[in-house]
Amino acid sequence: MITRMTKLFVRTLREDPADAELPSHRWLVRAGYIRRVAPGIYSWLPLGLRVLHKVEAIVREEMNAIGAQEVHLPALLPREPYEITHRWTEYGPNLFRLQDRKGADYLLGPTHEEMFTLMVKDLYSSYKDLPLSIYQIQTKYRDEARPRAGLLRGREFVMKDSYSFDIDDAGLQASYDAHRAAYIKIFDRLGLDYVIVKATSGAMGGSASEEFLGIAANGEDTFVRSPGGYAANVEAVVRPLAPARDASGVPAPHVEDTPDSPTIEALVALSNARFPREDRAWEAGDTLKNVLFMLVQPDGTREPLAIGLPGDREVDTKRLEAAIEPAELDAFTEDDFLAFPALVKGYIGPAALGLGEDGAGVRYLTDPAVSEGTRWITGANEPGHHVYDLVMGRDFTSDGVLDVAELREGDPAPDGSGPLTLARGIELGHIFQLGRKYAEALGLKVLDPNGKLVTVTMGSYGVGVSRAVAAIAEETSDEKGLVWPRNVAPFDVHIVATGKDAAPLEFAATLAEAVSEAGFEVLLDDRKASPGVKFADAEVLGVPTAVVVGRGLAEGVVEIRDRATGERTEVPASEAAERVVAILNR
Amino acid sequence: MITRMTKLFVRTLREDPADAELPSHRWLVRAGYIRRVAPGIYSWLPLGLRVLHKVEAIVREEMNAIGAQEVHLPALLPREPYEITHRWTEYGPNLFRLQDRKGADYLLGPTHEEMFTLMVKDLYSSYKDLPLSIYQIQTKYRDEARPRAGLLRGREFVMKDSYSFDIDDAGLQASYDAHRAAYIKIFDRLGLDYVIVKATSGAMGGSASEEFLGIAANGEDTFVRSPGGYAANVEAVVRPLAPARDASGVPAPHVEDTPDSPTIEALVALSNARFPREDRAWEAGDTLKNVLFMLVQPDGTREPLAIGLPGDREVDTKRLEAAIEPAELDAFTEDDFLAFPALVKGYIGPAALGLGEDGAGVRYLTDPAVSEGTRWITGANEPGHHVYDLVMGRDFTSDGVLDVAELREGDPAPDGSGPLTLARGIELGHIFQLGRKYAEALGLKVLDPNGKLVTVTMGSYGVGVSRAVAAIAEETSDEKGLVWPRNVAPFDVHIVATGKDAAPLEFAATLAEAVSEAGFEVLLDDRKASPGVKFADAEVLGVPTAVVVGRGLAEGVVEIRDRATGERTEVPASEAAERVVAILNR
Repeated sequence: MITRMTKLFVRTLREDPADAELPSHRWLVRAGYIRRVAPGIYSWLPLGLRVLHKVEAIVREEMNAIGAQEVHLPALLPREPYEITHRWTEYGPNLFRLQDRKGADYLLGPTHEEMFTLMVKDLYSSYKDLPLSIYQIQTKYRDEARPRAGLLRGREFVMKDSYSFDIDDAGLQASYDAHRAAYIKIFDRLGLDYVIVKATSGAMGGSASEEFLGIAANGEDTFVRSPGGYAANVEAVVRPLAPARDASGVPAPHVEDTPDSPTIEALVALSNARFPREDRAWEAGDTLKNVLFMLVQPDGTREPLAIGLPGDREVDTKRLEAAIEPAELDAFTEDDFLAFPALVKGYIGPAALGLGEDGAGVRYLTDPAVSEGTRWITGANEPGHHVYDLVMGRDFTSDGVLDVAELREGDPAPDGSGPLTLARGIELGHIFQLGRKYAEALGLKVLDPNGKLVTVTMGSYGVGVSRAVAAIAEETSDEKGLVWPRNVAPFDVHIVATGKDAAPLEFAATLAEAVSEAGFEVLLDDRKASPGVKFADAEVLGVPTAVVVGRGLAEGVVEIRDRATGERTEVPASEAAERVVAILNR
Repeated sequence: MITRMTKLFVRTLREDPADAELPSHRWLVRAGYIRRVAPGIYSWLPLGLRVLHKVEAIVREEMNAIGAQEVHLPALLPREPYEITHRWTEYGPNLFRLQDRKGADYLLGPTHEEMFTLMVKDLYSSYKDLPLSIYQIQTKYRDEARPRAGLLRGREFVMKDSYSFDIDDAGLQASYDAHRAAYIKIFDRLGLDYVIVKATSGAMGGSASEEFLGIAANGEDTFVRSPGGYAANVEAVVRPLAPARDASGVPAPHVEDTPDSPTIEALVALSNARFPREDRAWEAGDTLKNVLFMLVQPDGTREPLAIGLPGDREVDTKRLEAAIEPAELDAFTEDDFLAFPALVKGYIGPAALGLGEDGAGVRYLTDPAVSEGTRWITGANEPGHHVYDLVMGRDFTSDGVLDVAELREGDPAPDGSGPLTLARGIELGHIFQLGRKYAEALGLKVLDPNGKLVTVTMGSYGVGVSRAVAAIAEETSDEKGLVWPRNVAPFDVHIVATGKDAAPLEFAATLAEAVSEAGFEVLLDDRKASPGVKFADAEVLGVPTAVVVGRGLAEGVVEIRDRATGERTEVPASEAAERVVAILNR
């Protein structure tokens, strides 16, 4: 198949689009692969669609290879099933909701657990029908608060979502493992550099879950790894509670006047100067910082939350957001302080927090470092005052432990497998052991071998198909443009004819014919444009192999260029077709 | 590729679904191809999706063959472009509208003229870039008032829509002709029996337009044909105004008392008895019936419309609806009569109608039969009274001509090509010469060879892809189930192993292997079910060729069954693979 540039619906742009911060976004737009229609909503031009279809084909092949069967569900879905599982409400503003002409409520499906569960309930009734894995490659909708980075976080996007149905936990584990193995093959074939990390289940519910993260400096997710093999999205890291300490020698708590100490640093300096510790100097980690937030529940109700953590750590809002789902995070405002007069801004201490009798009615959760017997300097609930030698368990308690502090390079892995390193990634896939949550809610039961009705256990598995296109571009593009791996490139070879003579174009057309007949997809640049424009466009478009047919033809040579390495090889024109085919067959 | 029935996600139903009136709907549900999710919204199970994908592949091939390039636009679209072309309003309640979390207005695209126009405007700027044809195979949305017949009239459905862009009318004609030729190939390959008829452009605007109608007794559209080659959707038929007549001998109009004549029949009988006509008996066609409707404009305003037509004809509401688009039709109610006191129910005559000085402010449009000099009996605007010898042009006029009377078998074709026959059909495709309407509204201009900016002229071309699946089923299914043409069948061959012995199943599996290796898709019924159940399911599922491996195997024979003809052929088991492959290669 030969596509001529003079006919191809594409235009490359010389300038970066104004809204494009990431390389993938920039180059996919500049190279004419996609165009923005609205925030987080994109059109696919012919080149982009070719890549998308190749990614889809790889996903489809690997799903079929594990015996998963393809189906296709609507995007426009009735409210009722999502009402039963509470997701109609829990999705909050992330759900696109609408009404039809009769006033019936509908949503644009963000994911299809409910509908797949009902479909299996409709068709199947016996353990003999299981296991079953079914999937679709389908357009999904989420009204993201911050659509971002082109295809990386869109509001309309293409996903492959599969669902497994098993009679028991062992079956679910097997289905999960099969999907995990298939995902490894998919992302390997897509040429992506990725890690598999522990993940949280979020709004989906369920127990075990892992993410496939494409390693990318601009990724939205942060993950940690240890030399011993621990790997997790920071959202899923749960540090164990620090060991209890013996606090028998700690003096009784005492409130001190601590003027001019608005920062942890100033407080530590003042403390060391005026209230020195007996055994060593005070450090930032000896202070207990209490940070206030407002949680907004899906029904709109707001409730306060205080997080107590060592002064040398910050709250990681992404970890906190993951921990409080489906609630959303909001700032604790001046108006909120008015509603909780016991809270003294800048001097909040445990005594004014907590849901207990003495508290201000503010849920108080503490970092795992705040264990029994630990000793703290913290707010005294009076302006300009802190309390010293406040001991956890002896002098105060919290409503529970919550690990949402920012993780740091070198922190120990929770499983003791060594110091953590941090990196960023793009979520490419997510696999969940849902368990019986949806089957229970929607009544998906089958007869077991003893004729007893049992609830089916489910898994849910997603690949961001359109996002994968962007993730590949993000990983592989360089300062000149896109650089596609061979498996997903829009064309196998880009033949560029240069010069004003007829000979190069004729030779290029013949060469294109020969390579096309060998079963490859050829892009032929037959435009009347300068060699400079054509070479630049070839680099922007990113087809892995280019052949330049130009001045050298008179001497019987053409040039083969490798987009990824930049390598250029002159080959005899008479051998060009053979050499190109050999490269493409590699 | 072999699919085993024991693994296939399908269940056939013994009973018709309650809501299924048409064979296609009934069998697609009973055979486990589709499932209803909400009114007009369906899920595709594996078998249905296989057929859908085959139809899509044929459409894609023929589009690519005429040089059309595939793109993919969002379904969720911003309001603004549709506001500019007025379609945001004109679509009325047929449009699914929604707001995002910021309150911005969106719609679910019913068709994409606006977005394609803007995309070409974004990329192209010169006549040298044209002609261009681009298309997508995409999910579309229309909030139909009466979703019907499963996939035949859905609210979420798959369409192929293409758009052509040309610099001049000759270019548009060429693009239109290319699409027309491609559509012929598509519907031929789909095995459909269809006609190409003149059509109205409806809300789309533009000039020339034709429809491809699949001939089907249950079709929603009615079309006419003449021996001389005239073919048109009844909505697009425009009968010429009847020739003027000499009315010089007609007496002056006179009002008569006509009691007890509530029907045309009674009025004619009474007239012949009491007020005989001088030259011949009065006939129903001599009476002028004035029928009242209310039009509801997209903005909700209601306005009255009176249609005057001979008493032997009825108003065809589908023709009328097509004529008044984007307005919708509503009944003229008792309340409406109160608002127009000049209108006497049952005795409405031209004197009380019309927008002129003497009228009641009701637009009055007359049938083409009501030409200059024609002589009528009609209402006298008094209870129990009719006026006789009222002559068009002499005694009354109308506000214009509107041809919306029900057409009848034997009516003359408007082009004089002979008597019309009527039949019903399913709209499979629609091709439009849009002209410059959208390009003008959205500012799509390019530089012509003289450096002058000229507005581009466009065509729009649609194939109902999911509807085609139903149309094929509607045309081919029989009393036992589905009967797929080979090109779109979910499998090439259905191999049924019967009996409790291991031998038939083993032989069937080996046969499946051999046929699969020859490149065909095999469905292998390896279930532990009775032969009766398996044969019935094979007939319901409708794979064109079945092979039964059963008792005959002991004598060395298997049976090949043709689903369409019912023909059964015993062949030596040793030759089975060869014979099946020969049939599939035919």
